[in-house]
Amino acid sequence: MGKVVTFGEIMMRLSTERHLRFSQANFFGVTYGGGEFNVAVSLANYGIKSEFVTRLPDNELGENTLKEMRKRNVSHNSIVTGGDRLGLYFLETGAGTRGSKVVYDRANSSMAQILPGMINWQEVFKGASVFHWSGVTPAISESAAEVCLEAVKVAHEMGIVITSDLNYRSKLWKYGKHPNQIMPKLLGYSTVILGDIDTAFFMLNLVKVNPDYKKGESLPEHYDKIFAKCPNLKYVATTLRYSVSASHQQIGGVLYDQSKVCSADIKDVTPVVDRVGSGDAFMAGLIYGLLNKEFTHQQTLNFAVAACCIKHTISGDYNLATLEEVNEMASGNLKGLVSR
Amino acid sequence: MGKVVTFGEIMMRLSTERHLRFSQANFFGVTYGGGEFNVAVSLANYGIKSEFVTRLPDNELGENTLKEMRKRNVSHNSIVTGGDRLGLYFLETGAGTRGSKVVYDRANSSMAQILPGMINWQEVFKGASVFHWSGVTPAISESAAEVCLEAVKVAHEMGIVITSDLNYRSKLWKYGKHPNQIMPKLLGYSTVILGDIDTAFFMLNLVKVNPDYKKGESLPEHYDKIFAKCPNLKYVATTLRYSVSASHQQIGGVLYDQSKVCSADIKDVTPVVDRVGSGDAFMAGLIYGLLNKEFTHQQTLNFAVAACCIKHTISGDYNLATLEEVNEMASGNLKGLVSR
Amino acid sequence: MGKVVTFGEIMMRLSTERHLRFSQANFFGVTYGGGEFNVAVSLANYGIKSEFVTRLPDNELGENTLKEMRKRNVSHNSIVTGGDRLGLYFLETGAGTRGSKVVYDRANSSMAQILPGMINWQEVFKGASVFHWSGVTPAISESAAEVCLEAVKVAHEMGIVITSDLNYRSKLWKYGKHPNQIMPKLLGYSTVILGDIDTAFFMLNLVKVNPDYKKGESLPEHYDKIFAKCPNLKYVATTLRYSVSASHQQIGGVLYDQSKVCSADIKDVTPVVDRVGSGDAFMAGLIYGLLNKEFTHQQTLNFAVAACCIKHTISGDYNLATLEEVNEMASGNLKGLVSR
Amino acid sequence: MGKVVTFGEIMMRLSTERHLRFSQANFFGVTYGGGEFNVAVSLANYGIKSEFVTRLPDNELGENTLKEMRKRNVSHNSIVTGGDRLGLYFLETGAGTRGSKVVYDRANSSMAQILPGMINWQEVFKGASVFHWSGVTPAISESAAEVCLEAVKVAHEMGIVITSDLNYRSKLWKYGKHPNQIMPKLLGYSTVILGDIDTAFFMLNLVKVNPDYKKGESLPEHYDKIFAKCPNLKYVATTLRYSVSASHQQIGGVLYDQSKVCSADIKDVTPVVDRVGSGDAFMAGLIYGLLNKEFTHQQTLNFAVAACCIKHTISGDYNLATLEEVNEMASGNLKGLVSR
Amino acid sequence: MGKVVTFGEIMMRLSTERHLRFSQANFFGVTYGGGEFNVAVSLANYGIKSEFVTRLPDNELGENTLKEMRKRNVSHNSIVTGGDRLGLYFLETGAGTRGSKVVYDRANSSMAQILPGMINWQEVFKGASVFHWSGVTPAISESAAEVCLEAVKVAHEMGIVITSDLNYRSKLWKYGKHPNQIMPKLLGYSTVILGDIDTAFFMLNLVKVNPDYKKGESLPEHYDKIFAKCPNLKYVATTLRYSVSASHQQIGGVLYDQSKVCSADIKDVTPVVDRVGSGDAFMAGLIYGLLNKEFTHQQTLNFAVAACCIKHTISGDYNLATLEEVNEMASGNLKGLVSR
Amino acid sequence: MGKVVTFGEIMMRLSTERHLRFSQANFFGVTYGGGEFNVAVSLANYGIKSEFVTRLPDNELGENTLKEMRKRNVSHNSIVTGGDRLGLYFLETGAGTRGSKVVYDRANSSMAQILPGMINWQEVFKGASVFHWSGVTPAISESAAEVCLEAVKVAHEMGIVITSDLNYRSKLWKYGKHPNQIMPKLLGYSTVILGDIDTAFFMLNLVKVNPDYKKGESLPEHYDKIFAKCPNLKYVATTLRYSVSASHQQIGGVLYDQSKVCSADIKDVTPVVDRVGSGDAFMAGLIYGLLNKEFTHQQTLNFAVAACCIKHTISGDYNLATLEEVNEMASGNLKGLVSR
Repeated sequence: MGKVVTFGEIMMRLSTERHLRFSQANFFGVTYGGGEFNVAVSLANYGIKSEFVTRLPDNELGENTLKEMRKRNVSHNSIVTGGDRLGLYFLETGAGTRGSKVVYDRANSSMAQILPGMINWQEVFKGASVFHWSGVTPAISESAAEVCLEAVKVAHEMGIVITSDLNYRSKLWKYGKHPNQIMPKLLGYSTVILGDIDTAFFMLNLVKVNPDYKKGESLPEHYDKIFAKCPNLKYVATTLRYSVSASHQQIGGVLYDQSKVCSADIKDVTPVVDRVGSGDAFMAGLIYGLLNKEFTHQQTLNFAVAACCIKHTISGDYNLATLEEVNEMASGNLKGLVSR
Repeated sequence: MGKVVTFGEIMMRLSTERHLRFSQANFFGVTYGGGEFNVAVSLANYGIKSEFVTRLPDNELGENTLKEMRKRNVSHNSIVTGGDRLGLYFLETGAGTRGSKVVYDRANSSMAQILPGMINWQEVFKGASVFHWSGVTPAISESAAEVCLEAVKVAHEMGIVITSDLNYRSKLWKYGKHPNQIMPKLLGYSTVILGDIDTAFFMLNLVKVNPDYKKGESLPEHYDKIFAKCPNLKYVATTLRYSVSASHQQIGGVLYDQSKVCSADIKDVTPVVDRVGSGDAFMAGLIYGLLNKEFTHQQTLNFAVAACCIKHTISGDYNLATLEEVNEMASGNLKGLVSR
Repeated sequence: MGKVVTFGEIMMRLSTERHLRFSQANFFGVTYGGGEFNVAVSLANYGIKSEFVTRLPDNELGENTLKEMRKRNVSHNSIVTGGDRLGLYFLETGAGTRGSKVVYDRANSSMAQILPGMINWQEVFKGASVFHWSGVTPAISESAAEVCLEAVKVAHEMGIVITSDLNYRSKLWKYGKHPNQIMPKLLGYSTVILGDIDTAFFMLNLVKVNPDYKKGESLPEHYDKIFAKCPNLKYVATTLRYSVSASHQQIGGVLYDQSKVCSADIKDVTPVVDRVGSGDAFMAGLIYGLLNKEFTHQQTLNFAVAACCIKHTISGDYNLATLEEVNEMASGNLKGLVSR
Repeated sequence: MGKVVTFGEIMMRLSTERHLRFSQANFFGVTYGGGEFNVAVSLANYGIKSEFVTRLPDNELGENTLKEMRKRNVSHNSIVTGGDRLGLYFLETGAGTRGSKVVYDRANSSMAQILPGMINWQEVFKGASVFHWSGVTPAISESAAEVCLEAVKVAHEMGIVITSDLNYRSKLWKYGKHPNQIMPKLLGYSTVILGDIDTAFFMLNLVKVNPDYKKGESLPEHYDKIFAKCPNLKYVATTLRYSVSASHQQIGGVLYDQSKVCSADIKDVTPVVDRVGSGDAFMAGLIYGLLNKEFTHQQTLNFAVAACCIKHTISGDYNLATLEEVNEMASGNLKGLVSR
Repeated sequence: MGKVVTFGEIMMRLSTERHLRFSQANFFGVTYGGGEFNVAVSLANYGIKSEFVTRLPDNELGENTLKEMRKRNVSHNSIVTGGDRLGLYFLETGAGTRGSKVVYDRANSSMAQILPGMINWQEVFKGASVFHWSGVTPAISESAAEVCLEAVKVAHEMGIVITSDLNYRSKLWKYGKHPNQIMPKLLGYSTVILGDIDTAFFMLNLVKVNPDYKKGESLPEHYDKIFAKCPNLKYVATTLRYSVSASHQQIGGVLYDQSKVCSADIKDVTPVVDRVGSGDAFMAGLIYGLLNKEFTHQQTLNFAVAACCIKHTISGDYNLATLEEVNEMASGNLKGLVSR
Repeated sequence: MGKVVTFGEIMMRLSTERHLRFSQANFFGVTYGGGEFNVAVSLANYGIKSEFVTRLPDNELGENTLKEMRKRNVSHNSIVTGGDRLGLYFLETGAGTRGSKVVYDRANSSMAQILPGMINWQEVFKGASVFHWSGVTPAISESAAEVCLEAVKVAHEMGIVITSDLNYRSKLWKYGKHPNQIMPKLLGYSTVILGDIDTAFFMLNLVKVNPDYKKGESLPEHYDKIFAKCPNLKYVATTLRYSVSASHQQIGGVLYDQSKVCSADIKDVTPVVDRVGSGDAFMAGLIYGLLNKEFTHQQTLNFAVAACCIKHTISGDYNLATLEEVNEMASGNLKGLVSR
């Protein structure tokens, strides 16, 4: 199997520790993350050849992200440098009824200023089986959206599986375009879409006929409308998340292949060490499962849900769980025993 | 609306981190707190003009508390300096079945040695709407109790709303007087009292006729006895707290205005990051609600309960939640979603 | 009452903080522990004269363990020095569905290389009432098993109560012997055995006739088979543990004296700060209870269960709870109130 | 004496600890600073009424800078909010032969996007005696330079003493103008200029006739050329710094009032805890001395040099030394005795 | 040789790290110290049987000091408990020209409230060879001075060598007596006095005839006056310290036995990690040397100076250097080579 | 130019922070190092293709070293896994007159148990220009010495430049062979040797005729004897180090090519942040210089000395300085200016 290429922004994350509020912190923990990079790391942890494409500033902070990529076994051969700054975000970690807070500081980042033509996609995709992108990238700037379109076109031409996480963030999309002006074109090339129906309809400019679809029966009917808009689509998946509190989440999932809805039981996740990136852990699990010929759809979905759950116990943006750990949990062992 | 004046002691708090026991700690976290100061900070966070009155030593530790007051937007214009030392307390943070431990080291503090005449209360109360004090201050020394009496008399004369938190601490009250020799005189001036019925009866020298009042029906009857002892009283409120464990609390509340008992649903609070000061967060919420003409009694109580709950998720003595955060939670959103 | 002597290995423990994975840590917390030493510390915390016997390297790391023993009030008068290194273990602390991970690095430690004749057991046991050892020591090397046999023989001759924790660790026992070749001889001298029936049968080479014994009725029947193999046995006890997740354990216990099964209610333990050593906390509670003439069997068991529960809230290998704290909890108070 | 108003940018500073390189740090220390703000804090520490004017984003990071200003006793009444982000800078702290590294991330900050008309300077300068600005502000953006010009014009009209630190930073000045197109107009209003002759000549478009001026005799001649370009100038001062290594600096100074050169002895500063902001400490000392009617020029210069020296021993951007501490050192006591 | 008994106060020390000022610290390092306890620890590190006598509060903080004593191998068998609180001190660690700052918070400590009769000195001194006390103890309270007198009288009667460090602290001596009203009586029993001539004359009410004694020739003449006041005196020693800066000290010493002045070369100590307690390290070295029959006076003095020097490189109040380390340095090796 | 291959052990280093002694530390910093690996990292930082060969355990600790290698851009393609454990060492960081202490815990490591035949050297050396090893590897075990011999033979056959650092450690060499039984054979293949004459003579079984060679004139004569023993030798170099104290080193160097002695001026290095690995930094600088065709011998030596000096300012075992930084310093700039 070939490599998986992901494209997006890697940010430095500056976070308070021990649930401190921003105004209490004398120190910020320094880690790295970003929706697509999180997917790349998680796949590398599963033993898959993983390559990340982005644009980075030519300074110490940019170099540190390269060090992190190498440490996490993610190839950075096709990364371009230039532009002014590394995107950042600040994270205040909540607990219980107090949710975490993100302050983005990613405007004018090197990645937001990427331009069409900067990446040689034909070269990047040599030897690739999958290309993954998410709705965050077209949201950060118009030129990033254009480069995203370049990428999916080339990937499509080269016959590469395209996976897409809708990842709607209302604090982004500031450059004057509505997602439904940008996303339909991009999603048209997708083989796999991860997202909830509301977001998909919002991005694809679809109208919900039956607002009560969540009760269940009409799920295929709604998913089918997405298929109707995306001619290359093979799978739609949705992470089910119910937030009891910032420290207690309930996670399940649905996978639909236009013939059958496959769903996974809701699992309790408590305590939550760090929920940022848990959706990306689901996405990486989904990609892993779909690439794994020995997995049934149910196994794929269970794997993705288990990956999402275990991510909540891991500090930082990305899922550092190994294949063995996720498989163990996907097979039903939630006991958290000491390994000794 | 005028400023809220609070009077009490601000202490340096030295606490172990990550649930370490005292004997395991090489470091103590340094924060500040004290029942009345906690109320002052919380009100300032709600945008209310807040002033704190105390007595501080003239050394670096005293200066640091001034810096903390300014940082937290609490005025310290009327503070007097002198005396020997800043009050301290040591905190070992528990978890689960192991409760937290407080070691007080506040004897002979500058505040404990305050004397009548040191504070010009007429000057302090210019422009004030509310004066808040608690049962901790008359407990630390006889002269502090006398200054408290000075304050409530002047506040009463100047027509200022007086709020009182009974705050009984058995480890204090060491100077030879029983609370019921001191508190009735002080509470006689109160407009609002926060406390449970047992404590109120104990401090006001009242006898419970029906020890089964907790079952509910006779609640107004018991509260009315408090009203009978406190001629200026308009409201009595009680924080309902059931401790499942050090890490899991259940919080509700009752507000009584001599005509109707208003009560709030019990809410689960888990995990508990820091429960110290959660009663003060309730008190500040109560003051905020009562000052807010647009709040019904139920809204006031919901706000106070929400403030108390969210405080448990915040490290340190005082509630750093904003008005928006408490309102959001008081309106029923307990999900702790990530804000991004 | 005389001193309690424990024999085993004390290791330096190097652990990640705040649930970090090994690959995320720039720092390791440094503490000390080991099954038998944990028992020794806990007993010292209950006010019992406690002495630990082991072999340590003659270097700074060995000296640090002596400092820790003294700090924790455990006598080290009979310790011998020599050999190459201090045993170590690395701990990655899990949370929720992700269990903790232990990486042992104790091979060729000074203790593993202990030889018969190095300890003067007659001297060690002067003034002792109890000798405690566990199945970890005979598992680390054949010579350590031999020294263990020396010890139990001398203790038996001197009429000392011998307590044994089966403590099976599959990652140890690497020197070519099956536990059932070593343990029966050792356990033959035991007065008290702590362990579950499966482990006891495995170590004593017994065959389960009724694999459904866990449903309850046949418990005495199974325990009796252990008694049949151990001629000096007076009590068998079992810690009941159900692992909901790494952060939520359920703890109970059983104590059998060949006439009656005494059992303790299951208690919920959540959150778990550190579960390593909680079995040792049970063992120390059991020893304390059995030595305490005023305790009934039920009180002894309740004490051991409470000690086990409270240990989960304490960071590090050993139970730092005081007698008062365990008694309070054993008497049913699980509320975790703030002591102030 | 009236307040001192300073105008400039306040940045969050993210720095590695214990001389770690960027690639080694898992944590960044969080403090605040900026050339002009550092002056404001230092003056406040000397008991002078100090007000800082800037533009801040309306988010948690902006709010934190307000908390810091209050803590440090610097008024923020005239600050305006708006724009996208708080300026940041990253600091890697050097040692010995390895210098510290600054990575600026301040482009497009709220302050860089300030526009003429946003600040009501007439209002700001009510009650002010001194206005301080530095060459950093006109360097960050053209509009910031314009607002600087607004400020000095109004200050001049209102008869306020204007102090200016040349503060040339080659990594700034990116918007297409040479300093000599911007600075002469601004410096024309200055009463006091701090800077070395090379920088002053560079900014004022002057030509050095005698490149050997550093040997001394021609110093007044060179300073006089600066006076000739700045009609309102009363004093020029220069910090003399010789860098033996990152950990050992030698500091002196010169003050010229168009009649006489006053100079201070070179002092050794070792070790250097943090040299960032030591020039600002000199500037604040100079302002303090010039405002202090009882100081001779020599005392003023000694005070400024002492302030600069002591700053090197203090972590963070600004000088936290008190008036007493600087006076003690200016009077010749460099012993660093323990005060106890 | 018998044990060395020391009597004094042990305090918790709360110190800022990395040269932070008090107002910058979110954490305080927690260690323990006190002039006499520092001597006790240092002697224990040299392998001498060391016992510390003091009075401690009966709370967790007092218990922690017992743990520290045991860890450091100092016996606490004769300690009495009672009183209100543990003495504390706060330390801000300086650097270069900025000296460290101590804020004492030891008034009303359990030790300050010690009363005559509380300690059974006859019992304490059984098996003792040396009793050490310092001028700090009679400075903290009148009753502590009285207990000190009890101690030296009994020690004298029992023929024990009495060593005294003058240790004048102007911030103490607050109870209304001048040192010269208290110290002569106490010092009359001393066998060894450590202190400079100025302090000795001040405490013993002596008048300097030749103020230029520091130039050297008249040293014996001055020391002889001290001998004249102290009938039991055998040795006077003085630590010579020149403070280049807080980070650079120069250390030498003088030892006089009423016949000959022995002096040690000045040694440079830079950098200074922590100078608190370096005088106590000298004192302990002096005691060690005088007890060591194989040491000449010069060797004793060299040992004391080396101990003092090496203490400056060790964090915390007491000297943790081993006998081998001090001997190595006393023999002239100052290279600080890596031992590997 | 081809890659540089280094062969040796990578250890986890556990070190105290802030000059704490082992007995004071609750935390150990976790980094990685080892003489030969340090060379590999430094070369990678200079932009040279660098590959490290070793044997690692198949556990989490071994995996972490792989992550570190990737982060530091060192290839680990030829590493073999197996064996029991990762080598460790503990470091107590000294200051001033107190030297640092190393406690090795590397016996029985996976690398020490490496066997001939485990590494396919023909494969490893494909595309290599240089092979580097040091005297530490043949010191850890006889089989490691044998693998070293395998390596140098193959390298020699393949015409690869062989560089050797003598690196004598008396605490190693425990397996019963004297260095002079092992090293002559190995060094016979060397092209470049780094080491002082005493060590070279000791390892090569040479006798010093003129013990006063250090005074200088006879230097070539002594070096020539080394050449006589090593038929492939082209260069001998020596690091000159004078240790003023643990915090102040003086560094120079000598390079001899059998015709001319080239020497570099002594440079002062103070303060020392971390001197471990500074010899390896010299070695890497030497290799870089010799590979760089544009460097004269003097430039090579200056580069090596500068690399060694700057390493002392960097925490951890390896030199993280960039090519630009070392060149800047080698060209004479020692000022440590702030880069901003």
